[in-house]
Amino acid sequence: MEMLGRTRDDLPTPSPLVDLDIMAANINKMSRFARAASVGLRPHVKSHKCAEIARRQVENGAVGVCAATIREAEAMAEADIRGLLITSEMVGRDKVVRLIQLTRRQPETMSVVDHVQHARDLSEAAQANGVVLNVLIDIDPELHRSGIPAGAPAVALAESIQKMPRLNLRGLQCYSADSSHVPGHAARKKHSTEAMLPAIETFLELKRRGMPVDIMSGGSSGTYDIDTALEGLTELQAGSYVLMDVDYRRIGGMRGAEFDDFGQALTVLATVISRNHAGQATVDAGYKAFATDRPFGPVPKDLPGVTYRFMGDEHGLVEWRDDSDRIRLGDRIEFVVPHCDPNVNLYDRIFCLRAGTVEAVWPVARGYA
Amino acid sequence: MEMLGRTRDDLPTPSPLVDLDIMAANINKMSRFARAASVGLRPHVKSHKCAEIARRQVENGAVGVCAATIREAEAMAEADIRGLLITSEMVGRDKVVRLIQLTRRQPETMSVVDHVQHARDLSEAAQANGVVLNVLIDIDPELHRSGIPAGAPAVALAESIQKMPRLNLRGLQCYSADSSHVPGHAARKKHSTEAMLPAIETFLELKRRGMPVDIMSGGSSGTYDIDTALEGLTELQAGSYVLMDVDYRRIGGMRGAEFDDFGQALTVLATVISRNHAGQATVDAGYKAFATDRPFGPVPKDLPGVTYRFMGDEHGLVEWRDDSDRIRLGDRIEFVVPHCDPNVNLYDRIFCLRAGTVEAVWPVARGYA
Repeated sequence: MEMLGRTRDDLPTPSPLVDLDIMAANINKMSRFARAASVGLRPHVKSHKCAEIARRQVENGAVGVCAATIREAEAMAEADIRGLLITSEMVGRDKVVRLIQLTRRQPETMSVVDHVQHARDLSEAAQANGVVLNVLIDIDPELHRSGIPAGAPAVALAESIQKMPRLNLRGLQCYSADSSHVPGHAARKKHSTEAMLPAIETFLELKRRGMPVDIMSGGSSGTYDIDTALEGLTELQAGSYVLMDVDYRRIGGMRGAEFDDFGQALTVLATVISRNHAGQATVDAGYKAFATDRPFGPVPKDLPGVTYRFMGDEHGLVEWRDDSDRIRLGDRIEFVVPHCDPNVNLYDRIFCLRAGTVEAVWPVARGYA
Repeated sequence: MEMLGRTRDDLPTPSPLVDLDIMAANINKMSRFARAASVGLRPHVKSHKCAEIARRQVENGAVGVCAATIREAEAMAEADIRGLLITSEMVGRDKVVRLIQLTRRQPETMSVVDHVQHARDLSEAAQANGVVLNVLIDIDPELHRSGIPAGAPAVALAESIQKMPRLNLRGLQCYSADSSHVPGHAARKKHSTEAMLPAIETFLELKRRGMPVDIMSGGSSGTYDIDTALEGLTELQAGSYVLMDVDYRRIGGMRGAEFDDFGQALTVLATVISRNHAGQATVDAGYKAFATDRPFGPVPKDLPGVTYRFMGDEHGLVEWRDDSDRIRLGDRIEFVVPHCDPNVNLYDRIFCLRAGTVEAVWPVARGYA
């Protein structure tokens, strides 16, 4: 059925909504910021998996986009988004084959390496297929998730890669996932700076050794104004800023208890489907409608005093403290989502609203690995 | 790319796998059980959202299937699965329009009602569209999620519905979500019996009053052998038994600490993409690959002593206690999922394996509301 022109009252629920004006303001603000900081903005599409959002980011000055998965990168390439950096190690036959196909289509495509064995595997596959693969070395910010330690191990890996003619070493990546959500701007600055400096120092060392590296990529929405102030960072890979969520709001900003540098553009719309008890109502949105990886749930939008509680796969309870009839059977409620990345990943399409009306429906590249 | 004939080594990751032999054994076992108990089996597709699985359930004797959402029910109807019961209240214009369309296609379709206002809304829509809507009254097992209280309130609602010529009251539904996961069979039996008896008593009261009701639906995979022993239950709506998960395994069975009446047919396949530290390796499966609504994560299959820890949207850490090289870069690991329903919901397709080879790829009806 046609969705364009529908309003909150007649859309299917649960469904994700994006406020196009808030999103545009977020995109513009981060673009202006990166330009002023003389840092390239390559925003991460893992937060939205949506080519139409990526297109707007690139049109506003982004040098390309980051992707976490080969599927995300393929979806961006299908939409002719250029300048792809896949920020996860592409290991195993399926991913390497697809990385090579993608590189044939967009030769500037980059991915990351954190082990000499992986570099050799990529090099052999590139040789066998007659392509050159562009790589960044993934530096571990001592998180032990992925990456090679900064300093001597990374330099040694860089020297090995330099000897592999089918690999083109473009630089380094260091993503300090821990830093992005440290509460309080000062504490976050200290955490992220300590995590990033060894990687940046390694990048400068590679330059001193005459290696033609030009990319030092890192940073998040939570540290965008912190990491870009570090001498040597050339690219920012922030992602969540475009949609935002409860999680980022809670980390605190430069001036206040809330991080409100960017607006909450993403919500999930739900319907009240049961209303049999005073002070509570059941909505059609539960574990399958909201990200559940945080110790908090979604927050009802523009309904102060109303809270949400998970009640199973397809149900949630909204509660309020008075006996009023303020929420009724059939009401529509918007919720700011707990964590935007896994929340978008629950849906195949986003409804884009302006002035309360659906102006576009955008596909989400999720579900396939 | 063609996926049929692929093995664990060359499938995309992360991806959900179903072991066809284990699944078939689960389907057969529950079908035989329900037949022996003289209870109709209408299994819930919320656990798998997959028409091909539903087809096998119906071919093995199920009287139809339950669906939690209109989208699931539509997907089943598109695959000519008959006997649909939508177990959530269809409230709001979008859902009611689609319920009517579905009922035109499959007139036996049922949904549930827990409020007289909702019954009136359905009745008016049915009248305006010239259809008869079949309904069950949804009884609240004192969970306050959905449903009307058993006893007088439910009887009054039944009498109101009897006066609405376009609504056909078929009976009651009572789903005690809390009961299904009570640890220990004896405690679970007590919990579920106390929750279900008031609903069943109400069902018998409607019969005594001469109402032509014939369906008393309830039960879960965790209580399948408990609820079906209750005199008066006519239908079992268990779902998870077909795939199983860590969550159900932990509730304990009739004889042991593990509930192993049904086999774990569903896993998620992941790849080791980083391997830079002793006793740990990083896989490409995190919050977007596994359900995160439980206080525990997935369990590596056939790897005793190896544990999993979430490390973000696309990453997880597997850890083991010795310095051995037992897990290497590029290895494939299967994980039993924490909670099957929201886990299946993360994917658009399931790879079906027999003897280690993909025999079929089945679509999952998720993502759209």
